[in-house]
Parts: sequence; structure tokens; C-alpha cells
Amino acid sequence: MNLPLGYRYAATYAGIRKQEKDDLALIVSDRPAEAAAVFTRNVVQAAPVQLSRRHLKSGKGKVSAVLVNAGNANCATRTGAHVALASCKVVAKALKTKTRYVLPASTGVIGVELDPKLIADAVPRLVSGLSSNFESVAEAILTTDTRAKVAFDEVRFHRGVVAVAGMTKGSGMIHPNMATTLGFVLTDAEVPASDLHRILVDGTDRSYNLLSVDGDMSTNDMVALLANGAAKLRPKGKECNLLGEAIGGVMESLAKQIAADGEGARKLIVVRTSGFRNADGARKVARAIANSPLVKTAIAGSDPNWGRILAAAGYSGVRFDPAEADIFLQGVPVCRRGVGADFDEPDLKQKLDGSEVHIRFVLSGKGKGEARFFTCDLTEGYIQINGSYRT
Amino acid sequence: MNLPLGYRYAATYAGIRKQEKDDLALIVSDRPAEAAAVFTRNVVQAAPVQLSRRHLKSGKGKVSAVLVNAGNANCATRTGAHVALASCKVVAKALKTKTRYVLPASTGVIGVELDPKLIADAVPRLVSGLSSNFESVAEAILTTDTRAKVAFDEVRFHRGVVAVAGMTKGSGMIHPNMATTLGFVLTDAEVPASDLHRILVDGTDRSYNLLSVDGDMSTNDMVALLANGAAKLRPKGKECNLLGEAIGGVMESLAKQIAADGEGARKLIVVRTSGFRNADGARKVARAIANSPLVKTAIAGSDPNWGRILAAAGYSGVRFDPAEADIFLQGVPVCRRGVGADFDEPDLKQKLDGSEVHIRFVLSGKGKGEARFFTCDLTEGYIQINGSYRT
Repeated sequence: MNLPLGYRYAATYAGIRKQEKDDLALIVSDRPAEAAAVFTRNVVQAAPVQLSRRHLKSGKGKVSAVLVNAGNANCATRTGAHVALASCKVVAKALKTKTRYVLPASTGVIGVELDPKLIADAVPRLVSGLSSNFESVAEAILTTDTRAKVAFDEVRFHRGVVAVAGMTKGSGMIHPNMATTLGFVLTDAEVPASDLHRILVDGTDRSYNLLSVDGDMSTNDMVALLANGAAKLRPKGKECNLLGEAIGGVMESLAKQIAADGEGARKLIVVRTSGFRNADGARKVARAIANSPLVKTAIAGSDPNWGRILAAAGYSGVRFDPAEADIFLQGVPVCRRGVGADFDEPDLKQKLDGSEVHIRFVLSGKGKGEARFFTCDLTEGYIQINGSYRT
Repeated sequence: MNLPLGYRYAATYAGIRKQEKDDLALIVSDRPAEAAAVFTRNVVQAAPVQLSRRHLKSGKGKVSAVLVNAGNANCATRTGAHVALASCKVVAKALKTKTRYVLPASTGVIGVELDPKLIADAVPRLVSGLSSNFESVAEAILTTDTRAKVAFDEVRFHRGVVAVAGMTKGSGMIHPNMATTLGFVLTDAEVPASDLHRILVDGTDRSYNLLSVDGDMSTNDMVALLANGAAKLRPKGKECNLLGEAIGGVMESLAKQIAADGEGARKLIVVRTSGFRNADGARKVARAIANSPLVKTAIAGSDPNWGRILAAAGYSGVRFDPAEADIFLQGVPVCRRGVGADFDEPDLKQKLDGSEVHIRFVLSGKGKGEARFFTCDLTEGYIQINGSYRT
């Protein structure tokens, strides 16, 4: 699969994180791209989130570069706003573009001052090292993730092909509502700003907004979508839907990769609900099941404890009749009409040992409301990672 | 401290749980007591919860006995309603009281049929073994709790003394809103039903409703308050407030004991918030902090990672200005006006090693809204306990 045209990438170790591993990265579009972004809904917003929002506005949605660092959230510090702006200025100068065309993003520990000199010193290295190495950026933005997360697609039109490429990072503090975590999706299609925003919101709704690792929502979350038009193809009408579909698919793949690589996770859990009066109810129940630590630990232990799934649905805030509830684990019916079904327990336990677990919660009524949710199992690893992340 | 007059207790091993440890218990009031109870708000309600509710109504709030079993939730089974009713009938017959004066309660695994014969066979043993052994019941109702949880108080009036005694069990699936877990509070004061209900609701608001272990809410939660009047003292006016205070204090102690003994917990965490526009906002922020797995794992690791506390407050749904936020850990200021404060990290880490951790989140505005919340740290133990509870 080809990368989108007209983008270049670079990553380097700037000394922001203690461990010597790339921690500063740059994505550059050779011509200013149309861009849209969604941000965390946390009241506490990191300086780069605030500045990216402002730049998108003052730059009328045009973006030449995304500057990302890992190892420091640049949040809840005295100098955060200054550091974020100074860093964008350095990048803009080196790339001969406008400061407001640079989007900053940060991930890492909160409340530690970020030294702007580390970034200023590293930017020349980044700019001179720009190449087609997409993966180098995907690697540099990771924190407690165990692997890079990338996804690609392309769409064929009569007049040619456009490419879509996405990268993201997790892997704790992942919770739905608006962008969660960092995600960057690039295309070389030409897309007007208004369409781009709609495509991003639709894509987020079927990916990042269906994702929870631990119910915590970060101060730094941001997902940006860039379209630079380098393929010189402007999808119209149905083509625009096809492009949206490809972008949504890339985002969904990224979201699933985040869930599967949640902190300490050994399993991706996909929750599906159906038969509800409306999609909102279905979503609430799916989310309650996906967020339940008791469900997530049971899955970690390959324990078909469906009572916890029923209980989680029950406290989701959605009214339903338990006597209408069917539950399936890996396709095996474990609860019928709210009561335990007979199933081959050793066989099901073995099925639950896989790296992907499917939970289905179905109301037998006539409702058409259905939903999906992605999460991961909860293991000792999550505790180990988070008990001493800062120090 | 004396036990309330006119109550007797018994516990036995009926064979409901696999491990040979008392699993069936009876609390008897020699004369029918006035009673009030609060129940889980889960849509999925266990058979004993449904029947207790009905008995309180049909019995006009009179209760002669509480029958509790551990090891089986009697929930989401084919025969649950029948088993609960049959068990109450057996008890009523043996005690020569009315079936509707018996409150059933169950805790344990969901979705496994409960054999009524085990209970019928054990009731004669229970009735013949009734004694003043309050603790025997407190022991029998435990599941994954590591210790019994009891609290006592007495109130002196001019005309004499009334006693209050409470017992409870945790220790996972603990979440606020209505009664959580099982709790039984007894007094020998004479209290009219209407006052009793108010005292219970006030007490719940300052105890069980401020409590979260893992955010999961059970199908079986119930807290009951019984007043049998055996002390022949009927508190009036201010005396009634004193009694309410004593009962609330007992309930608060029980709630804290549950948090401190949360599954895998090594530390009780007390979260306090203040300076909010109203109590509701303060409560939401306190709850978000208490429920954050990232905060709870940081406390487990004695890591003063206050950024996670700020982030949790930020996603609580309450609007506030981060620049007004002060955070204290064990009384030590770690964040001032939304920015990291200087503190002696090794010293604070040592302070966080204690068995009780105090988190304070203060807005520097003029708001009078404040709240408290109890929880525990999140450790590997929680995962180990819950990864294989059922099997």
C-alpha cells in the first residue's frame, strides 16, 4: 500500500524522556493541508491542545506541520503555553511556513516543566532528516504502548487513486468522548474543510469514541485529519463517501489496536449490543460492560462469569427487562432470557484464551438500537505499569 | 460497648459455598422491629432484593428476622423467587412469626441455582443456636472480604441508654447510589417508621453512598436498619437527632471498613473536595478522583502523581478553572493554582506508604460546596481475586 503523496516524516531523541528513544517527531505536508481535529473534553487541557485549537482557527484550518513530543504532557505547568508556542515558531521558521500552520501535540507526564531548549535544539535535526519514514513517527509518539499502531488504505476512483495513512498511540487513560489519545490520519485527496470535519467526526464516532481502556480521559487527547490534495483528486458525491469510509476504516483499525495494546492487556474485547429501543441505550450498555473492571478481570482469567456482564448492563442507567437478555461469549450462549444457559465450560474457557474476545448482549425485543465498544482485559500488568509511571 | 437488647444471632455452614465456612446466618428480633431498607438501583435485582422490598411493604415495615446467605447471589436463576420465598417460610415457621416479617438477603456468584433444601435443612440448627454472638453473623456474610466489619455506638438519654450495632460486608462490586453491599444496623431504641427511614437515608448519604471500590454496582445490595424498642426508650426531638448521629456514625465506620478492605486493597483512600459552587459538583469531582484507576494505582505505588488527580477532576463533568485548583496529598501541597508545587518527594512517598491516604482537592474560589468519598488503592490483588472468582 502506498503512502499518501506530499508528506514527509522525521523523529529524533531530544532528551525529553529519560530513556534514550525518539521522543520528538514531525509530520510535514509539502503544501499546507486542509485539516480538522477533535480534542479531549477534559476541563483541564494541556497547552498544546489549547494552542492547536487556536492555530486551526487562526490558520483557517490550514496545516503545514504537526510537531509531537512524548515523555512530557506539557500540561499543568507554569510555562506550558510559552513552550508550546515557542516550539511552533521554531518549526515554522525552519520550514518557512506560518506559525499558525503548525499543530503541537504532547503526551507524557503531567505537571513537569518542559524545557523549550530541548525542542529548539532538535528541530534542525528533524527538518534535515525529513523522509518517507512514516513508521519513525509512529514509534516516537509511543509512551507505555508496546508496539506502534498504524493503518493504511487507498481508494480507487476513475481518475486515479488516493491514499490514507494513520498512526496512533495509547495506551492508558483511554476513554470515549471526543478524541482520545493521539491520532494522525493523512490523505493526499483534496477535500474541502467542511467535508473533512464531517468525515473526521463520523470516523471518530466509529472508532475512538467506542474505545475505553480504563475510563480515564487524558488532558492531551487529540486526533487530527489532514488532506493535502497532492494526489490532485477531489472526490465528489459518492466518491466522498468512499473516502470517508476508508478514513473511518483506518481510524477503526487504529482504535482496535489501541484497545488490544491497552496497558497490561493480553486481549482485545469487542462488545456488541442489540435489540435496544435506540442506539443511545445500546451504547450505554455496551460501554458499561466494557468499562466494568469485574468483567475485564474475568476475561483476563478466561472466566465465563456472565453474571458480571448482566450486572454491568443493569447499572448502565438503561431500563430493560432482564428476562429479555441473552448473552453470548465467543458466540456461545451463556445466558438466555436472563437465566444461565447450559454450556461446555472447559471448551468455552479455552475459547476465551484467544487474543480477541467477543461479548454480545442481545435484548429479544423488537428494538433496532445496536452498538459496539472496544476495550481490553484488565491484568496485573496494568497495575504494575501505573503504580510507578511517574517515578 | 453493649449490644442492643432483644436481638439474637446465629450462623452455620449450610453447604452453599464450596469452602467449609459459615454461609447462612440469622438475625432475630424477639419482638417485630420497625425496619427500613435501601436497595441496589441495578435494573437486574436478585430475588431476595425483590422479596425483601415486597415483605417490607406487605409487613408494613415490621421485621422479625433477617436471613442472609453467602456463596450464592440467588440472582438470574430460574428458581430464585421460589427459593427466596421458601426460605423465608421455613424461618417464619421455626420462629412462629409471619413470612412477611422475614427479610432475605444473598451475596455471592450470580446465575447459579441455589438449592432450597440446603437452607431448609440448616434453619433448625440456626434457630436452636440463637445467641448473643453478633460476630458470628458478621463472619458468615463475608465473601472475598479479608475481615469482619462491625461498628458499635450507644446514646445516653436522661432516661437511659440505647445501643446501636452494625455489620457489613464488601468487598468488590462496591459503588455508590443506594445501598451498596450488605449492611445490617440494629438499635434497641423505639423509633417510628417514618423517622427510621429518614435516619437510614441520611446515614446512607454519609456512608455507603460515598463509597466506591471498583465502580461496579451489584444486583444484591441492601442495607437494612432495625429498631425493636427493647430498650423501652423512644427518643424525641433532639434525642432523635443524637440517635441519627450515632447510627450515621456506625454506618460511616462500616463504609470506611469496606473501602479499606476492598479487593486487593492495602490502603483506605479518603478524598475531600471543597470550594465548589455546590455540593453536587464537589461530589462529582470527589467521585471521579476516587474512581480513577490511574489515581488508585498511583496510590498503590505511593507515587505522588497529582497530574492524574487533576486530570480525573477535569473529566468529572464539572466545569471549573484549573488555575484555581490546589491539590494536597497527606496534607502536603503538590499542586497550587493548577501548577506543580515544590515538595519533598522522598518524604511524601514515605507518607503515602501508610494505610490511609488523604487526597484533598480545593478550589480557591468562594464556593461552599464540599464533599467526601471513600475508596481504596488498586493493586495486583484485585486482579488476582477477580480473574477467577467464579471457578
